[in-house]
Amino acid sequence: MSSDFGKTLRVGVFGESHGVAIGVTVDGLPAGERIDMDELQAFLDRRRPGKNPLSTTRRETDVPEFLSGLRDGVTCGTPLCAVIHNSDHHSADYAELADKPRPSHADYTAWVKWRGQADMRGGGHFSGRLTAPLCVAGGIAGQILARRGVFVGAHLAAVGTEEDEIFPLHPTGELFRAVAAKPFPTLSDAAGERMQRVILDAREAQDSVGGIIECAAIGLPAGVGEPMFDGVENRLAAALFGIPAVKGVEFGAGFGSARLRGSENNDALRVENGRVVTETNRAGGILGGITNSMPLTLRVGIKPTPSIGQKQKTVSLSRMENTELTVHGRHDPCIAHRAVPVVEAVTACVLLDLLLEEHHGAF
Amino acid sequence: MSSDFGKTLRVGVFGESHGVAIGVTVDGLPAGERIDMDELQAFLDRRRPGKNPLSTTRRETDVPEFLSGLRDGVTCGTPLCAVIHNSDHHSADYAELADKPRPSHADYTAWVKWRGQADMRGGGHFSGRLTAPLCVAGGIAGQILARRGVFVGAHLAAVGTEEDEIFPLHPTGELFRAVAAKPFPTLSDAAGERMQRVILDAREAQDSVGGIIECAAIGLPAGVGEPMFDGVENRLAAALFGIPAVKGVEFGAGFGSARLRGSENNDALRVENGRVVTETNRAGGILGGITNSMPLTLRVGIKPTPSIGQKQKTVSLSRMENTELTVHGRHDPCIAHRAVPVVEAVTACVLLDLLLEEHHGAF
Amino acid sequence: MSSDFGKTLRVGVFGESHGVAIGVTVDGLPAGERIDMDELQAFLDRRRPGKNPLSTTRRETDVPEFLSGLRDGVTCGTPLCAVIHNSDHHSADYAELADKPRPSHADYTAWVKWRGQADMRGGGHFSGRLTAPLCVAGGIAGQILARRGVFVGAHLAAVGTEEDEIFPLHPTGELFRAVAAKPFPTLSDAAGERMQRVILDAREAQDSVGGIIECAAIGLPAGVGEPMFDGVENRLAAALFGIPAVKGVEFGAGFGSARLRGSENNDALRVENGRVVTETNRAGGILGGITNSMPLTLRVGIKPTPSIGQKQKTVSLSRMENTELTVHGRHDPCIAHRAVPVVEAVTACVLLDLLLEEHHGAF
Amino acid sequence: MSSDFGKTLRVGVFGESHGVAIGVTVDGLPAGERIDMDELQAFLDRRRPGKNPLSTTRRETDVPEFLSGLRDGVTCGTPLCAVIHNSDHHSADYAELADKPRPSHADYTAWVKWRGQADMRGGGHFSGRLTAPLCVAGGIAGQILARRGVFVGAHLAAVGTEEDEIFPLHPTGELFRAVAAKPFPTLSDAAGERMQRVILDAREAQDSVGGIIECAAIGLPAGVGEPMFDGVENRLAAALFGIPAVKGVEFGAGFGSARLRGSENNDALRVENGRVVTETNRAGGILGGITNSMPLTLRVGIKPTPSIGQKQKTVSLSRMENTELTVHGRHDPCIAHRAVPVVEAVTACVLLDLLLEEHHGAF
Repeated sequence: MSSDFGKTLRVGVFGESHGVAIGVTVDGLPAGERIDMDELQAFLDRRRPGKNPLSTTRRETDVPEFLSGLRDGVTCGTPLCAVIHNSDHHSADYAELADKPRPSHADYTAWVKWRGQADMRGGGHFSGRLTAPLCVAGGIAGQILARRGVFVGAHLAAVGTEEDEIFPLHPTGELFRAVAAKPFPTLSDAAGERMQRVILDAREAQDSVGGIIECAAIGLPAGVGEPMFDGVENRLAAALFGIPAVKGVEFGAGFGSARLRGSENNDALRVENGRVVTETNRAGGILGGITNSMPLTLRVGIKPTPSIGQKQKTVSLSRMENTELTVHGRHDPCIAHRAVPVVEAVTACVLLDLLLEEHHGAF
Repeated sequence: MSSDFGKTLRVGVFGESHGVAIGVTVDGLPAGERIDMDELQAFLDRRRPGKNPLSTTRRETDVPEFLSGLRDGVTCGTPLCAVIHNSDHHSADYAELADKPRPSHADYTAWVKWRGQADMRGGGHFSGRLTAPLCVAGGIAGQILARRGVFVGAHLAAVGTEEDEIFPLHPTGELFRAVAAKPFPTLSDAAGERMQRVILDAREAQDSVGGIIECAAIGLPAGVGEPMFDGVENRLAAALFGIPAVKGVEFGAGFGSARLRGSENNDALRVENGRVVTETNRAGGILGGITNSMPLTLRVGIKPTPSIGQKQKTVSLSRMENTELTVHGRHDPCIAHRAVPVVEAVTACVLLDLLLEEHHGAF
Repeated sequence: MSSDFGKTLRVGVFGESHGVAIGVTVDGLPAGERIDMDELQAFLDRRRPGKNPLSTTRRETDVPEFLSGLRDGVTCGTPLCAVIHNSDHHSADYAELADKPRPSHADYTAWVKWRGQADMRGGGHFSGRLTAPLCVAGGIAGQILARRGVFVGAHLAAVGTEEDEIFPLHPTGELFRAVAAKPFPTLSDAAGERMQRVILDAREAQDSVGGIIECAAIGLPAGVGEPMFDGVENRLAAALFGIPAVKGVEFGAGFGSARLRGSENNDALRVENGRVVTETNRAGGILGGITNSMPLTLRVGIKPTPSIGQKQKTVSLSRMENTELTVHGRHDPCIAHRAVPVVEAVTACVLLDLLLEEHHGAF
Repeated sequence: MSSDFGKTLRVGVFGESHGVAIGVTVDGLPAGERIDMDELQAFLDRRRPGKNPLSTTRRETDVPEFLSGLRDGVTCGTPLCAVIHNSDHHSADYAELADKPRPSHADYTAWVKWRGQADMRGGGHFSGRLTAPLCVAGGIAGQILARRGVFVGAHLAAVGTEEDEIFPLHPTGELFRAVAAKPFPTLSDAAGERMQRVILDAREAQDSVGGIIECAAIGLPAGVGEPMFDGVENRLAAALFGIPAVKGVEFGAGFGSARLRGSENNDALRVENGRVVTETNRAGGILGGITNSMPLTLRVGIKPTPSIGQKQKTVSLSRMENTELTVHGRHDPCIAHRAVPVVEAVTACVLLDLLLEEHHGAF
């Protein structure tokens, strides 16, 4: 099974962009958890396209129908299945693409893998649309975590070469909510303005642009995660690379720590209110794969949307010869801002999975 | 199980730095593969410490004893177990550390997780020493891959702010072997000299320094990897974050692609000798989690060794109060250069796992 | 994730008996496989209730809707999701049962596990109704296997103390189809008549009765399965015990071989038409967890339906005192005959999983 | 990975019968557990051969060496590795067998699977000898379970057609210890005498005989296990079929329940001392895959040892023609009695795994 992740909490997505429906199964949720549907829908709306010129004009209501696992809005303990029906798809836009793979899309690799049988209209199963059911799972996980004092938040740290501020040493749930409520998810509104300008410029140039997302989680107890290959970093990275367009994942100071000396990178320990804390957090809250109770911080690098309006060089698979391609249809000039809640969603699912595994009885 | 990874090929390490032995089990190797023991030992020697002032003076011969899975040097198909006995450990150096966690080490998180029961002498199970058995597995995997035309190589891309050249668009097996044969694994000898100077400077300052490793694999067919959460990136990242001190993983242009526009980042497709190739390789050979037959490229960020000779702030766990610590013993001023074969080893194991899974019969 | 099984082919079911819908996700199907929908529906109809007095009168059309993974009836390689909407449920019948667990049902254990939050109306997620989506997956797996010369068949070997004949040493696909076409799935029609009498007698007595199913698979190559804990027996047993009411699984001569001497139980080897075969098949086609190319044979013991019309002793969970219970509603006096295609379905899924894993390229 | 099982507690065995050593890795043990080495050795001695004419004369001391995971006899939380060196093997006995597969052994299937590369001397990795490291893991698991009030016991329920008594409705830890202390593990000494006679008769006839083991576990809380495919039955069956020669597994009344009516098979519920219990236990303590706090009971069918002294029909693999074979060497006329602690060991490992998973914090 490749389209799922998790161990105690298992999240699996299904569907193709232009198929009947997309959806998610979530197995292992604790029983008796009431899901606030308004809050969930608000979370889903954060990634929904069609709201402004910063994203594709495809309009989807993205309202999930729950087929199982919930009764009267409360989890039953059994596998939850939620479905989102597809509506506004323009499959005609994709006829040419069956033979001409779009550069830097999964078109060619999927064609090789499934010998041309994949339904790649709209990106098929690789479409960013599959992140909608991920957000259903993550929105639910986030509510369950929040009830236990664990909060996950994210912001857009960069678009192109424009950068936002970074999270403070101790971000709060209030800060997370404030960013989530903004139409454009940056800490600094001025930086947000500059980033939006970068996106609109790319759009005008029939081009696209990438970005970086910073995500944090607070309230995690120390001791979560297993050594070596099943630690918090391993699990999070494995899941985060499942988000389309993610090409890099780093924790704490990440690649930046490679530039530092140990005396600069080490986080001094201190006792504060009877708890062991660190004065800085270059470890991103994780040492040896295990949480140390400091905020977990990570960054995700998102490549520019490969679908651009400019003419590009590609090949004809049927004739095995060079050709050119102009991608029509509706595309996002940037997906990094819409990916912010997706990164939160995946992080929330992985953390809930880990916490259920570690503290089953107590959690 | 947290100390293993892989699915069809499963690699698990065990042992503590100052215990009886460390070792590795490898389950799922194809039968009938002759292992060249000299080549394997040469591979292991690349990460072995004690050769020069660039690393710890702990001397270990690191010669594995094979307990199972091999008969007359040929794999049997059954689980292989290799053991490396510990010899040159100075446990006395670690008495103070049982109560005073070293900053940015796993000491504190392991103490919380196992309620003080972990054998953390020398870093215990979290020690970089555990990468020796990983290299046994990876060295074997590398030989099996090479026999099928798949080659994995790596070099030290940066130490502190000093940078090496980058791999060419199409690195070759010869290039990989040439770098592996060098005493210091850089493409540019001049860059290597500068990096060694940085390491020795850090050593003199009783400090340490981090680095970045670039790794590549050539000869992979297109179509390897599964979509979303079980792709090549997901699997490699999950395993690579198991190497101690790794804080970031990126593929192809990685975080750099976030700075680019789509027109700059997209890899144009072209037919060359009847095969589909790309003119650039910012995707790092992977699209949608699936290989496209271009070289797979990745970079790993390694933090500076947290053990430094300078006095540091920490806490006494028994008295829950602030204190100071000076770490004695023998430590690496940098582990990034020794981690180069480890990154190769883990990459080779993951790729062999994927190839066995995808092409079981044919591979 | 507990409601799924498989490794390369992963089958997961979801839904509650009286919820919105039940369904199945199947991840890992090969691409390009045309599904014969009529054949699939015919397979599903074999387990469908409401056809005669031998089963519950609950009427369900059990027509799956495919949400993903299929395009124009051909598999895409991406996860398939099929949903069956619930219609004819009488939830009012279950009001009393929320407090009074039915003896030998999962009512009490689910109540403990999920602290009373499970939706146990109609048995909830534990209902035999969940075997309908299993049959969707198994029917598809069976078609894919048949295309490669692997056929799975089963018959009702016993109901109460009445026994059917056993499969011949070399059952054929024709034999499998002939049994599947019968209204009551026995090899001997006379035995079938006697068994039906036993079921109807139990029904008249407001009681129920158990049975045994024999299942076989032909056309498997030798060498499928892994040693020790991941062999054909391990995988099949783990999955078969997921079918509600299964209390025993045995392969080949099974428990009977415990009564025999080695000279009686050993299967003599012989060369026949250039292939190695055995003269008898007490091993059930599996030695050391690995297939030997002889027919795979297994038997599954099914307990009598715990829902019976007679008054039974139980407890009130709210008052923690003894009480009595008369289960109303519509129940199967025997489920063993309806479970025949379910055993085939699960067996087909496990075998396809194993074959995809072992012979990915060639299969 | 095929030679391991478990999820939170992962047990993997390695080694070949005539290789350097056999061993086991156990990952996921709780930290801080003192292992009583005398008790462990006594447990291992129960399966050790060479004690009397009821088993093979191969003499092995079977004393494990612990390489990791233990410090001063206390678990560290890190992976434990224990090794048993092979000593008394007569590989010369096996020369002929490389070409002539022994009937009903894994010789032929291993030959196909690994193209003749497996080291099958003494049965190789399929040898019953691999159950020694399983008992190391199970003995440790048993001590940890006992400390929490969970006890596992087993007895030889049948050899050939001779039967022992069955466990009472509520077996006790004392009863388990009493049976374990007997030289021949039956409840009834008279039955034990008859069974030993059956074994010695088989031995005199250069033959062998099979048997049945009944195993029980007491002290389990209700609510352990997951629905459908990850329940207690699924996990136990999957692991138990990994014991060489096991051909059937049943829980509670098992196949016998197929003969009964619901009114006979259902276990009436009753409140006793404020706890919900059942008056009978045909469910074997498991409903819907989940424990109900009644004793867990299961039975395992063991086939007769395939190695017998009589001349048997087989084939020459090199010449692909029929031939005959007389197996020399030292063999067990019955392995069922030696398998009693092995069934206990596997059951203990699976139960500890489940309990760690369900009650991580509290357990």
